Amino acid sequence: MAITVVGSVAFDSIETPAGKRDRCLGGAATYFSLSASFFTDVRVIAVVGEDFGPGEEAVLTAKGVDTRGLERAKGKSFFWSGSYMKNLNEAQTKITDLNVFAGFDPKIPAVYADSDFLFLANIDPVLQKRVREAMPQVKLVAGDTMNYWINDHRPALLEVLKGLDILLINDTEARTLAGESNLVRASRAIQAMGPKTLVIKHGEYGASIYQKDGSCFKVPALPLDVVFDPTGAGDSFAGGFYGYLTSQKAINAESYKRAMFYGSVMGSFAVERFGTERLQALTRAEIDARFEQFRALTHLV
Amino acid sequence: MAITVVGSVAFDSIETPAGKRDRCLGGAATYFSLSASFFTDVRVIAVVGEDFGPGEEAVLTAKGVDTRGLERAKGKSFFWSGSYMKNLNEAQTKITDLNVFAGFDPKIPAVYADSDFLFLANIDPVLQKRVREAMPQVKLVAGDTMNYWINDHRPALLEVLKGLDILLINDTEARTLAGESNLVRASRAIQAMGPKTLVIKHGEYGASIYQKDGSCFKVPALPLDVVFDPTGAGDSFAGGFYGYLTSQKAINAESYKRAMFYGSVMGSFAVERFGTERLQALTRAEIDARFEQFRALTHLV
Repeated sequence: MAITVVGSVAFDSIETPAGKRDRCLGGAATYFSLSASFFTDVRVIAVVGEDFGPGEEAVLTAKGVDTRGLERAKGKSFFWSGSYMKNLNEAQTKITDLNVFAGFDPKIPAVYADSDFLFLANIDPVLQKRVREAMPQVKLVAGDTMNYWINDHRPALLEVLKGLDILLINDTEARTLAGESNLVRASRAIQAMGPKTLVIKHGEYGASIYQKDGSCFKVPALPLDVVFDPTGAGDSFAGGFYGYLTSQKAINAESYKRAMFYGSVMGSFAVERFGTERLQALTRAEIDARFEQFRALTHLV
Repeated sequence: MAITVVGSVAFDSIETPAGKRDRCLGGAATYFSLSASFFTDVRVIAVVGEDFGPGEEAVLTAKGVDTRGLERAKGKSFFWSGSYMKNLNEAQTKITDLNVFAGFDPKIPAVYADSDFLFLANIDPVLQKRVREAMPQVKLVAGDTMNYWINDHRPALLEVLKGLDILLINDTEARTLAGESNLVRASRAIQAMGPKTLVIKHGEYGASIYQKDGSCFKVPALPLDVVFDPTGAGDSFAGGFYGYLTSQKAINAESYKRAMFYGSVMGSFAVERFGTERLQALTRAEIDARFEQFRALTHLV
């Protein structure tokens, strides 16, 4: 019942009001894999450069993530530098060096071929589509994207959306993609593009899931008095959501709801320390305890 | 166990993407009273002008609202005109004519003196304080305010806050009042100013309640594909919240949580039609049904 994830594995330099870190391990596929690894088997497809050493790989393998799909290329790994000094909700990008990622042509290891689930992290929709088509056997496909692809690569993105079961995006992305400011109407418009299940993340206000039958379910974000580093919160949410969902015997309305809670739980951990530090140190007992915190935050007796 | 509410009773001219209405009944005390009337006895204190006739008063009395505290003054009633054409979340004020409200000196009818609960709707904090002091017997005091008082009448507002048990404000107001963008830290700062219970309304993202013991509880807003008219949503939330809360035999952690749901329920109705139209036509059965909708929207099995 493994998930194969394709996306970026990168180095990030991050500055937030709580401090800064240089070249810590990052990338959407990294956060997704670490987060989902608490729930199910994860197999990663990405490209890294010569600066990606055994220490970085061990961060993933220590959580049981299958790294046989990590391609080594000559040159440096994807590097991103950003600052949250002005706004904790939105990074100001200072540097984006695609490096080896510029020539990324995802190759699916034969040992990944029996994956039941696929997650297309935020990369060029042309690559997302290629991976989707190379894994026709998967039972469920979820994916992410961002405003850059929505605005400047819309035709390619629309092709990907046709093949997605679940799309996870944020408020702004949903509004831009749908061309509609009301999120209920936006969700309907996006569902008509392909994904029957739409998860919209509202940052500090939590997240909503819209299902094909018109039903909606909402989870909050954890009230945090310090957000160390928002980097990777959305990918960690996706990892918790999809990791939990696909680990269940039955994928039904109730498992989707619980998956939303696990998504929010994992996002809340990710921002407590810099980069992947918190996810690396996390235990399943802590996850379960926080799940109960979320229940107390939202449930009547 | 009645609530006495002091605030504005006004005429509003409203323009939204869904249409427009001229001179419909409005004002914070009106919305609060109508909303709270579904849960408990409400007594209103306000000033109206000669343009306020039996038809307007009947809107309140039809719901059992005690209007003996409605003072008639020479001149016109408070008039507000606003547009939501650019932004459904924030009105653009076109006209504010205080009229008789400019000389408002709240008088508390002797028959209101046994009220156990007081709600200080959004008016000049000098008047809020005067009413609070004139009703020393009340068991619980809740109140609202707005950025104008926070920014330009801060010393008077801080005096009011000292005497408040519960403050209900929105995100922007909380951040401005506390001088702190993180809402958890902002809530602590505001609690230190007086109100041990703080309700922060997040518009389409719902609302949070912060208690003295550090606990927090969150409710969503109802996902609506059409918002006819946001006017009065916050006051209707307050009416549902405080009306339900004060109607309970025991005011405890659980009743506060349920009150948050009733607040969000009443806010969701208010915006479905123009002005007070929806609240006027509302039934208790509809309220109960929507409460269950909110439960389904947030609760795991």
